[in-house]
Amino acid sequence: MNTSNPLESIGAQAKQAALTLQNVSNEDKNNFLLHLADSIELHSNEILQANALDLDLIRTLDKNDAFIDRLTLTDDRVKLMAQGIRQVASLPDPVGQVMDEWSRPNGLKIKQVRVPLGVIGFIYESRATVTCDATALCIKSGNAVILRGGKEAKETNRYLAQLIHASLIASGLPEYAVQLLSSGNREEVTWLAQLDQFVNVIIPRGGKGLIKAIMECTKIPVLKHLDGVCHAYVDADCDLQLAVNIIDDGKTQRPGVCNALETILVHQDIAEQFLPLLAQRLNKRNVECRVDAQCKKIIPDWHIEAQEEDWSTEYEDLIVSIKIVKNIQAAIDHINHYGSHHSEVIISNNESHATQFLQQIDSACVYHNASTRFSDGNEFGFGAEIGIGTDKLHARGPMALRELTSYKYIISGDGQTKDPSRLSI
Amino acid sequence: MNTSNPLESIGAQAKQAALTLQNVSNEDKNNFLLHLADSIELHSNEILQANALDLDLIRTLDKNDAFIDRLTLTDDRVKLMAQGIRQVASLPDPVGQVMDEWSRPNGLKIKQVRVPLGVIGFIYESRATVTCDATALCIKSGNAVILRGGKEAKETNRYLAQLIHASLIASGLPEYAVQLLSSGNREEVTWLAQLDQFVNVIIPRGGKGLIKAIMECTKIPVLKHLDGVCHAYVDADCDLQLAVNIIDDGKTQRPGVCNALETILVHQDIAEQFLPLLAQRLNKRNVECRVDAQCKKIIPDWHIEAQEEDWSTEYEDLIVSIKIVKNIQAAIDHINHYGSHHSEVIISNNESHATQFLQQIDSACVYHNASTRFSDGNEFGFGAEIGIGTDKLHARGPMALRELTSYKYIISGDGQTKDPSRLSI
Repeated sequence: MNTSNPLESIGAQAKQAALTLQNVSNEDKNNFLLHLADSIELHSNEILQANALDLDLIRTLDKNDAFIDRLTLTDDRVKLMAQGIRQVASLPDPVGQVMDEWSRPNGLKIKQVRVPLGVIGFIYESRATVTCDATALCIKSGNAVILRGGKEAKETNRYLAQLIHASLIASGLPEYAVQLLSSGNREEVTWLAQLDQFVNVIIPRGGKGLIKAIMECTKIPVLKHLDGVCHAYVDADCDLQLAVNIIDDGKTQRPGVCNALETILVHQDIAEQFLPLLAQRLNKRNVECRVDAQCKKIIPDWHIEAQEEDWSTEYEDLIVSIKIVKNIQAAIDHINHYGSHHSEVIISNNESHATQFLQQIDSACVYHNASTRFSDGNEFGFGAEIGIGTDKLHARGPMALRELTSYKYIISGDGQTKDPSRLSI
Repeated sequence: MNTSNPLESIGAQAKQAALTLQNVSNEDKNNFLLHLADSIELHSNEILQANALDLDLIRTLDKNDAFIDRLTLTDDRVKLMAQGIRQVASLPDPVGQVMDEWSRPNGLKIKQVRVPLGVIGFIYESRATVTCDATALCIKSGNAVILRGGKEAKETNRYLAQLIHASLIASGLPEYAVQLLSSGNREEVTWLAQLDQFVNVIIPRGGKGLIKAIMECTKIPVLKHLDGVCHAYVDADCDLQLAVNIIDDGKTQRPGVCNALETILVHQDIAEQFLPLLAQRLNKRNVECRVDAQCKKIIPDWHIEAQEEDWSTEYEDLIVSIKIVKNIQAAIDHINHYGSHHSEVIISNNESHATQFLQQIDSACVYHNASTRFSDGNEFGFGAEIGIGTDKLHARGPMALRELTSYKYIISGDGQTKDPSRLSI
């Protein structure tokens, strides 16, 4: 590590805190979480005042209403933050869970036991709610965390960090278990990414540019997803109304999120029946459709032809690409080729087709007859999420408590040696 | 990726093979493994001839007898290679295993299912047995593998790769499921490490220099250990003979391996009783002892004083460092500070001390009253191992079939959408 890294002492403090945290009881961790939840509700006014300062700044920037709305806290939203923390407190402690145990013929007893990862570097944009979710998940799983939030929530995050710090001290947890980087220096992200002596994993959440930049400059393992190019495949034998609803929900309920749909693949045998229904619904939602030549023949109103790059584009907007495929295998091949391994759905009444799709699609979450919008820690029952992963190592899909743990092997014996015959000398 | 990477076509072939392999049945994978095991036994003479060519070359190099012995194949060792492959075939298929499943209040059914990682890049030194172990583990877990063996086993590996290729074809598996890099070009390691478009994980096994060099030049996740600085802590209340045996086995049975002991910590209250017994045994084994000032007072023959760097040195030789500690906490702190998070043992009759040690030591494998030499896939009952990990992400300790898998979530519904109320338009 570069010894002149300005965050070195923060890293060292986090590592020290992590060593203590790995042995803190569930009760003590929950005491902290419940104290923090109460404190957040108690200081709702101050949180809203800090948020007002952030909003003053945001209004001077060129941001749309949806963005400003996401950043805006209200009394109710503050209550939800506190409730989220209490929900994480109510979940079982992952640390110490026995994942597997067995004995060996020589009498050794082997246990595989969950342990915390250590120090998490969490880099995220915008919402202050995420500050609370990440704090709750990291502490509950016995990890120290270094938070680096976006500048748009700077004042709110700063105030929340004060409350978190006070609750850590009040409940006897290490005071450096949660540290917020708030100098506002743009270099902070790079410095954090170079703390490989202290940080066990980096979790970045935000735009692709941010995540790519982090990956360029770090040797620390990164848990992340870059794209969410999610697909729906409409099989020949399916409930057409159900298909329209799942696609509508997936594309239009919140088009800016990573589990929203970007591409619809339709079996050729059902296309003439299905596309008019789909066109009608998407038209009502003002969705721009970019389609292949065959679709265009069926729905002449769809006049924008999809280009090659459309098949791998995450629009994050009311735009969708649509293609007719000759069979389920063509759909699977398309998704495995163009997709981002995030979330895909087959809409079908054919069980063997569903099985084939669920097995052969190489994505974190594969759905049968349900919206891809459920790819989310809360919807999975994890209480919250710290991110979603689309790589293969460690964690895939929504990441929460279990995904913030590692394991160790505990082996108990009564004197076993590898080669007892050597020892009688 | 650099488009001029000479291994690009090999990477693309491996990725294509991996897509097929993820859906190959356990029966078909086992047919390959059993075919290969038979083929190895059938061609034992040819394998020994290839090995003889390697040995001719090795004898011209400056290598010690132990090294040459490890590289030398015999009829019996070839039989063991085949048996190892059959043992992996006999293990349950990890692919498709349901790790967890649950339902949500909205009726969604969620299953977490094991899937292969994809393409493994395996870089290793020396022994041809490792070629067979890696092939068996990778194929059984549904992964394609690109093998890069050491130059000392070049001819043997080449011949084995021919047998593997023939067995893949004979059993109907993708012919590029296992590919050996055998040009002998030193740049191969770098090229392989830069195939991030195709390779999901790099597993390097060998010297620290090799592994560090790979980590410098790759963006692919690496599963590895660098050091094996393993510790034994002798508690005040313990069976002294058992302690001597565990230390002797750990230090001298095979000093060159990563799970061998490097440092002994002794509780001050037992030191005067224990050290003479230990000195006697280590003396018989010709072990050089580097000790702290207190040890020296008790055993004047121990005249080499340990330096600061001794406490973090992996000797890989008949050398050990020894230190007296004032209590168990000092031992734990020493190990967490100087250790490499590989394998450590407490020798104690005190259950609460054992529990404290097993909990607070932050290492992949922690032992109570048993030799650290058991940190090994075979000894854990995994059939073989592809390596040992000391990092926190994905896999820790001995890595075999389960550690070569990822997972995906399979979610089944009957039309669930995130926001049903929006859909009645």
